Amino acid sequence: MTNQPVAAIILAAGRGTRMKSDLHKVLHPLAGRPMLLHLLASVDALEPAAKVVVVGAQREQVEAAVAGTGTTIAVQDPQHGTAHAVQQAETALKGFDGDVLILYGDVPLVSTATMAAMLGQLDDATAVVVLGFRPDDAAAYGRIEADATGRIAKMVEFKDASPAERAITLCNSGLMAVRSADLWPLLARVGNDNAAKEYYLPDIVGLATSDGKRAIVIETTPEEVAGINSRAELAGVEAAWQAVRRRQMMDNGVTLIAPETVWFAFDTEIGRDVTIEPNVFFGPGVRIADGATVHAFSHISGATIGTDAEVGPFVRLRPGAELGANTKVGNFVEIKKAKLGDGAKASHLTYLGDADIGAGANIGAGTITCNYDGYFKYRTVIGAGAFIGSNSALVAPVTIGAGAIVGAGSVITRDVEADALATARGDQATKPGWAARFRAAQTAKKSSGKKA
Amino acid sequence: MTNQPVAAIILAAGRGTRMKSDLHKVLHPLAGRPMLLHLLASVDALEPAAKVVVVGAQREQVEAAVAGTGTTIAVQDPQHGTAHAVQQAETALKGFDGDVLILYGDVPLVSTATMAAMLGQLDDATAVVVLGFRPDDAAAYGRIEADATGRIAKMVEFKDASPAERAITLCNSGLMAVRSADLWPLLARVGNDNAAKEYYLPDIVGLATSDGKRAIVIETTPEEVAGINSRAELAGVEAAWQAVRRRQMMDNGVTLIAPETVWFAFDTEIGRDVTIEPNVFFGPGVRIADGATVHAFSHISGATIGTDAEVGPFVRLRPGAELGANTKVGNFVEIKKAKLGDGAKASHLTYLGDADIGAGANIGAGTITCNYDGYFKYRTVIGAGAFIGSNSALVAPVTIGAGAIVGAGSVITRDVEADALATARGDQATKPGWAARFRAAQTAKKSSGKKA
Amino acid sequence: MTNQPVAAIILAAGRGTRMKSDLHKVLHPLAGRPMLLHLLASVDALEPAAKVVVVGAQREQVEAAVAGTGTTIAVQDPQHGTAHAVQQAETALKGFDGDVLILYGDVPLVSTATMAAMLGQLDDATAVVVLGFRPDDAAAYGRIEADATGRIAKMVEFKDASPAERAITLCNSGLMAVRSADLWPLLARVGNDNAAKEYYLPDIVGLATSDGKRAIVIETTPEEVAGINSRAELAGVEAAWQAVRRRQMMDNGVTLIAPETVWFAFDTEIGRDVTIEPNVFFGPGVRIADGATVHAFSHISGATIGTDAEVGPFVRLRPGAELGANTKVGNFVEIKKAKLGDGAKASHLTYLGDADIGAGANIGAGTITCNYDGYFKYRTVIGAGAFIGSNSALVAPVTIGAGAIVGAGSVITRDVEADALATARGDQATKPGWAARFRAAQTAKKSSGKKA
Repeated sequence: MTNQPVAAIILAAGRGTRMKSDLHKVLHPLAGRPMLLHLLASVDALEPAAKVVVVGAQREQVEAAVAGTGTTIAVQDPQHGTAHAVQQAETALKGFDGDVLILYGDVPLVSTATMAAMLGQLDDATAVVVLGFRPDDAAAYGRIEADATGRIAKMVEFKDASPAERAITLCNSGLMAVRSADLWPLLARVGNDNAAKEYYLPDIVGLATSDGKRAIVIETTPEEVAGINSRAELAGVEAAWQAVRRRQMMDNGVTLIAPETVWFAFDTEIGRDVTIEPNVFFGPGVRIADGATVHAFSHISGATIGTDAEVGPFVRLRPGAELGANTKVGNFVEIKKAKLGDGAKASHLTYLGDADIGAGANIGAGTITCNYDGYFKYRTVIGAGAFIGSNSALVAPVTIGAGAIVGAGSVITRDVEADALATARGDQATKPGWAARFRAAQTAKKSSGKKA
Repeated sequence: MTNQPVAAIILAAGRGTRMKSDLHKVLHPLAGRPMLLHLLASVDALEPAAKVVVVGAQREQVEAAVAGTGTTIAVQDPQHGTAHAVQQAETALKGFDGDVLILYGDVPLVSTATMAAMLGQLDDATAVVVLGFRPDDAAAYGRIEADATGRIAKMVEFKDASPAERAITLCNSGLMAVRSADLWPLLARVGNDNAAKEYYLPDIVGLATSDGKRAIVIETTPEEVAGINSRAELAGVEAAWQAVRRRQMMDNGVTLIAPETVWFAFDTEIGRDVTIEPNVFFGPGVRIADGATVHAFSHISGATIGTDAEVGPFVRLRPGAELGANTKVGNFVEIKKAKLGDGAKASHLTYLGDADIGAGANIGAGTITCNYDGYFKYRTVIGAGAFIGSNSALVAPVTIGAGAIVGAGSVITRDVEADALATARGDQATKPGWAARFRAAQTAKKSSGKKA
Repeated sequence: MTNQPVAAIILAAGRGTRMKSDLHKVLHPLAGRPMLLHLLASVDALEPAAKVVVVGAQREQVEAAVAGTGTTIAVQDPQHGTAHAVQQAETALKGFDGDVLILYGDVPLVSTATMAAMLGQLDDATAVVVLGFRPDDAAAYGRIEADATGRIAKMVEFKDASPAERAITLCNSGLMAVRSADLWPLLARVGNDNAAKEYYLPDIVGLATSDGKRAIVIETTPEEVAGINSRAELAGVEAAWQAVRRRQMMDNGVTLIAPETVWFAFDTEIGRDVTIEPNVFFGPGVRIADGATVHAFSHISGATIGTDAEVGPFVRLRPGAELGANTKVGNFVEIKKAKLGDGAKASHLTYLGDADIGAGANIGAGTITCNYDGYFKYRTVIGAGAFIGSNSALVAPVTIGAGAIVGAGSVITRDVEADALATARGDQATKPGWAARFRAAQTAKKSSGKKA
């Protein structure tokens, strides 16, 4: 990595019309995180002195998204091309002296390693480093004419390229690294003498070389510089990201029966000898300890799952779910802001929200913590080893003591002391023969076509 | 498009033995609709004067499926080849004078545009238009020898083809357009002097050209004329259909995180800036308004979802579910024939059937509308702003007034007036120490190997 | 097949470090069954006289897994190569005189037919049969130089191969068949004069041919001899297995709307005209009768589903679920060790465990069988034609008689006689205006920022 201070300029002024969205293009999520934040995270690993995002429309959305990340917003309005866009960051970088990375908010998967490799090529003689790639179909990309050492002779837009130049397979990704001392003077000399009357960033390469400076290209894969201009391209980049992550997970000792049906978030962490059945969706903020099993059809966000725990199938874990070791959370169970102690079980048709469940407690089928009165949320506390009978409603705030038993079908509104039995339900009454008479009556009504 | 009246003859007399099914092959569904009805819908866009389906076995199934579509059934029994099959439609088309399209019930994805293009080539000099295609593997398809203008010199069955003819890549899909004035006389001249003693439809091409009339071929893609003879081929055509539709959805501004895991029905309509997480299945009759979110693992049929509504994960919406704007329907919730007013919420473990839920009402976890007595269905009405406590059963017919509150765990059997509180549950009783004694006793039994 | 007695030696002493697992590599499951057991099942179809698994580390795990299968464990410790590994089985096969198959625990999908074909080539003149294959990328596999009849001239390790030998496309899978009378003497002559000081099994080929005996190769597909050394390779073999099984299912008359999203277990049996929607996961032990429908998002293990039954979406069937003909089990329903008679229905949000449900019974939404007291499981019996009202808890052991009705929201703790009505719930009480006053109070607290 370079020893110079680093600044990043991220261009995000494009209108993104092909997304057909009211959301700014660079804020569309990828693996559960806005694509711009993927890029900022990779930049942050370089410990940059400054980060500037250049936006056009919808700047408020971008400002809100980068709040707290130490990123400055610059505005390009009106928009006169990429060189003009980069110039809008000059004020924000006033006084900065070092290496400048020029990135694109809709090219989100460029790695820190690639950024560092670009910066590492800058020196007093090398004014510009361009990131190139060789796509399967070079299409309308600008071409880079370079020698075997990577020294650039010429960069040419596709529309201006001769047939011979179009035969070049090395294309311009648009990403560059430039010393700040070179960048601003070069930009000031870029002209707009072209059909679109725009100021093009690649023109700085020709200006630099005409000054006797070197411009060089380093290459990366097409995947790393894949740009996102439509939702189909977004889905394509998501798929590529997921494929890489699934492979990493398996290499680290996670069993994925059907890898292509498990979706990770950017920050999912999973231990060794964890098995994940098909069809599991991870939102952000999930950590799973060694030996756990996640059954099919689970939807998990913001949750921690302890060692050897077993969850699903059909489980919904929402933020704040903390499952201890050897816990078991079964089908049709939702857990939110609730902590389950080691060995606790909630196996069927249950909602646990805003709750503390002690170790070894058994939460029966159909249990619901009534945590909301329409205005406030209240907590339910269940002690270690307690047994909550099926179909019970626990009206919070309420505490069930350690070792207590709640009878099935109870509505518990007052605290239950440790080791006590609590029931709250009606007495059973029977009317012999009533059902037979009812059936006869309803059958008659049905055949007569009339309802009660 | 032609200015002549149009009639369509759809051949569907094949036995479909490779389907191994008691259901007629052309009635197997594709994107939630029988394949024959896909074809009829494409034909209907031509405003045809008549539609005739020629069936063999299982005619009752086909008759039932096309009831109300203005389609006539003709029977081919016994079956003596495709020319013979088309002849069976002659009586049904008695008096019809115009252009006849010959289609196949098991080639369901031919578009209206292609049909119109075929018809548009017919004129006084052109007796027959054949739809050709160039498959990757021409295999045993009949070949079409034609000049650059599409004029057909010869059509040859694969088994009768010379090596030179087999090298031809243009194949016969079987689909044709023929003027009725030409069709019936041509068919009458087709012979069965072949090994199978069958009357082959392609023979009319040679007869027409020997009369000095023109026969021409127009080309389409192999995908459009993909035939379905087995469940594997059905799955293949379904996959192709879904891939096209997913792409259209994304192009229209729908985010599909994992497009390959979302299944649309033939008539699914989705607005802009809707996000659909992985693993969502749409049955017929779904409309989703702008800005809505459908979380993973949702199964949705016959439902409308309002602007900015949020549904799932793990949601089941059945026919008659109408969710207003900003509604929220959460996990493990089923809704059937029920309308939720704007901003109403049913977030967890709930069944709402035959119900009207007012705007802003909050339906607690575990709420169930008891809409069925084994004979009749009854309605539940919940007023605007009402709050139904968790684990409540609402025994229909019943009305909960606007702003009323139902206490958790209640069984409501009588109407509740507006702004009232209703509870229906047992009193809480406690037996101190009972649980500890119970545990001791059960532990003893367990260790002795005996049950209570 | 050979007429000689057959013994199988399965090598499973590799450390499997790339799996990064505490579970022995050959015990990782494939289609719901440890890969070693797939191989043993294929061997069993040959009715072998003996089966020996040669293990190194984690021998206890393997011993436990093969318990009851008639398999002997031999231990290779320390490990000195494949020839040395096979030798470890000699004691276990003392007295055995016949044909020996040498297999690999991490090459689990070799078919009985291929094994039989190998054995069928052994005769008095043919000492060794090698299973060869031609991979797309021959990589570092050992090469087999053979004539057109399959007679092997030479086998060479990749690292020792000349460029000409590396150009050979026929590779050694490692699997062999050898007469026992030849095997042990040949093994005794294998040396370890190589860099790794290991005894290599393929060396017996050169020894045999130098004795004037024949060694021949028969070929199979790369898929059949795919080895599993990592979880990614395990997922790849699982995918290949599933693709074959899905195709078989469709060919047999099962509709799979999205075949790539249905996962079968090794023993799943499905009848004709069964439709399976996308996203269904089968664990072991499932049988589905003709005409049934399995809706999307279902998770099914150890269950039988009767003719024309309909299950899902969102259904969990666990071992011991037996659904009769025309039963209907709907969304968010879990069934375990419970039998549903013909025509019984449990449509919503229900848990049925340890239960017998009579024909035609209707189990209302939210019904829960309370089968567990924390120590023992108890049974619930529901008679034919009974009607269980929604949100009921049935506290086992309990019997609901035929034709009885349980009122909604009841907690049933005592038996209900046939044709009776039973209710057990609180009386409904109403406090007019209470909700309005509550809202006013809570709104005031909320605006003051204080909670009750």
